[in-house]
Amino acid sequence: MPFFFRLTATDGAARAGEMTTAHGVVHTPAFMPVGTQAAVKGVHHDDVRASGAEILLGNTYHLMLRPSAERIAALGGLHAFMRWPYPILTDSSGFQVMSLAPLRKITEEGVTFRSHIDGAMVELSPERAMEVQILLGSDIAMQLDECVKLPAERRDIERAVTLSLRWAERCKRAFAGAAPGRALFGIVQGGDDQTLRAESARALTDIGFDGYAIGGLAVGETQEVMLKIVAETAPALPAERPRYLMGVGTPADLLEAVARGIDMFDCVLPTRNGRHGLAFTRFGPINIKNAHHADDPRPLDAESRCPAARDFSRAYLHHLFRSGETLGGTLLSLINLYYYQDLMAGARAAIAAGRFADYVAETREQWTAKRDLREDDT
Amino acid sequence: MPFFFRLTATDGAARAGEMTTAHGVVHTPAFMPVGTQAAVKGVHHDDVRASGAEILLGNTYHLMLRPSAERIAALGGLHAFMRWPYPILTDSSGFQVMSLAPLRKITEEGVTFRSHIDGAMVELSPERAMEVQILLGSDIAMQLDECVKLPAERRDIERAVTLSLRWAERCKRAFAGAAPGRALFGIVQGGDDQTLRAESARALTDIGFDGYAIGGLAVGETQEVMLKIVAETAPALPAERPRYLMGVGTPADLLEAVARGIDMFDCVLPTRNGRHGLAFTRFGPINIKNAHHADDPRPLDAESRCPAARDFSRAYLHHLFRSGETLGGTLLSLINLYYYQDLMAGARAAIAAGRFADYVAETREQWTAKRDLREDDT
Repeated sequence: MPFFFRLTATDGAARAGEMTTAHGVVHTPAFMPVGTQAAVKGVHHDDVRASGAEILLGNTYHLMLRPSAERIAALGGLHAFMRWPYPILTDSSGFQVMSLAPLRKITEEGVTFRSHIDGAMVELSPERAMEVQILLGSDIAMQLDECVKLPAERRDIERAVTLSLRWAERCKRAFAGAAPGRALFGIVQGGDDQTLRAESARALTDIGFDGYAIGGLAVGETQEVMLKIVAETAPALPAERPRYLMGVGTPADLLEAVARGIDMFDCVLPTRNGRHGLAFTRFGPINIKNAHHADDPRPLDAESRCPAARDFSRAYLHHLFRSGETLGGTLLSLINLYYYQDLMAGARAAIAAGRFADYVAETREQWTAKRDLREDDT
Repeated sequence: MPFFFRLTATDGAARAGEMTTAHGVVHTPAFMPVGTQAAVKGVHHDDVRASGAEILLGNTYHLMLRPSAERIAALGGLHAFMRWPYPILTDSSGFQVMSLAPLRKITEEGVTFRSHIDGAMVELSPERAMEVQILLGSDIAMQLDECVKLPAERRDIERAVTLSLRWAERCKRAFAGAAPGRALFGIVQGGDDQTLRAESARALTDIGFDGYAIGGLAVGETQEVMLKIVAETAPALPAERPRYLMGVGTPADLLEAVARGIDMFDCVLPTRNGRHGLAFTRFGPINIKNAHHADDPRPLDAESRCPAARDFSRAYLHHLFRSGETLGGTLLSLINLYYYQDLMAGARAAIAAGRFADYVAETREQWTAKRDLREDDT
């Protein structure tokens, strides 16, 4: 089964599509839960699947350090290892090296960094990044890139862009040995500089990838800046390829990015916020740890598709967090994963119906309309 | 529906029975998972139920302190609060006051202790213990007792026994106001002194309870001492009432106690050990954190009724613990809960078939026979 993407509907700049991989079809716009260490934090895979997730993200940086790509390959690849027989995308480590590794040195050859786990020095070249992801067996691999924290000097951003482009070429060559059907995405860099973003997008398109990501956003800039970059970069990418906005974001971020032509997202927010007691709901965010939930017999959302949002009272969820029971984080993570999937399913349906702008407006209105069902202090 | 217990089979001292409560039937010998704070640690109720659990234990001590019995009552009682519509037994706090409260003072009237949560002084009399459990709405309430840590002086044990008996009478009077169908169990105390145990059992039987617990064991004594006390105490209790050995124990403890006439157990071991990487299996205990599991593609038990024991490799479970992913503790807790339930189901079937001694022997043999499927260092 070759990797294949086709658009099924467009509505303004918003797009709905189908991405076919060797492990199944992904309907876009798609949200990918993050399975950093071959597990979505606190949530059983079966529940992740039941939430509607069609594709997971695995973090190459974490997996190559522990348990190692070679070990996972010997155990049958990442799908078999974690028993997730559906599509998987692996990132290339660029972002984690920037944010997690205590020491790192970037050269033309690649990046050398100190493992945050055991202190060992690790070398990661574009070729090794491809080898690792081929060993993991992901359906979609990402090029190795250099990700720059914002704000940054233009010359630093420019240097990272041109280096990332040379690495993109090397990744494409190295990935030629991957099994048929596997896809490789290039990553547009350029910080908040639209000239550099446009150059990066054009050069990557010239190299030619199965899909294109916009990287280096959600790294400190405002939502306004991020959406401006997205709005200007997405049209510079080939319409017939999937577009992936890495590491984004809130429900509002997702809707606004879809409106600007993005097809794929990943983010730890649903699970991280869930573990911290913050629920994303149709009625806006709800901080279940707030005292006024202690006696509230109502569920978070009686009409949710998520059993946990229907079955348990706010009082009980509040109690779990107050008592330090990890079940609370598990249930809220799950509620959030369902909400993100439902948000994307609604977007797909609205795009197909040619009413995406209305969908965004209605969704936003509902986030703020029912004050008695949420709260104002989150 | 009145509370009702009937024996369905006996095999030597071992007994199989059915305990009918307002929330359903419990088949004995029964293991009750512990839902300390209205949740079984790390495991979703639906999975606890799927493991075969017919009854849960809730800790009155924890629930009265947080979120409070009055709050739970206002939210519809413990069954509704935690959404567990099946039988629930609540303990009376005696053991937790002994083991958790930093300051405690025991008088004829009751016990006064400092809450380990907010430092408030809490008074708990036999009457208040009944009121709290009636508010919680448990199917089986336990008398307030004084639990003594072993080893202890005989005079301390004796004082606790006689005080617990006076409290037992007051509990019975106070419990008369409970809804019909709810049961109250007395608790035999007496430490490791069989004369005191026999006196306690006789006096409690004279008062008359719906069932009888053996308390104050698994508090520091050897398994040999515990089983001796159980063997001598169980026959002193009315044959037609259920017998509950509190806070016990390992799989071996359970089988040996069933052989001596015990019908009910509760213990945190399946979940606590699960969180720490220790699995109870048909092949004996397995410490999944040991390095030799890192490359083992085999499941913990391919023939287990528990999906997690079949679906995930030992290598993957090992990885989850090494990576600090809480999913590992959740999966092992679940595997252990299934194992405990299966152990009890096997006991019930063996007693009905008149071959309980063989069942114990076969189970013990399997724990040690398949060395390649377990390990020797746990």
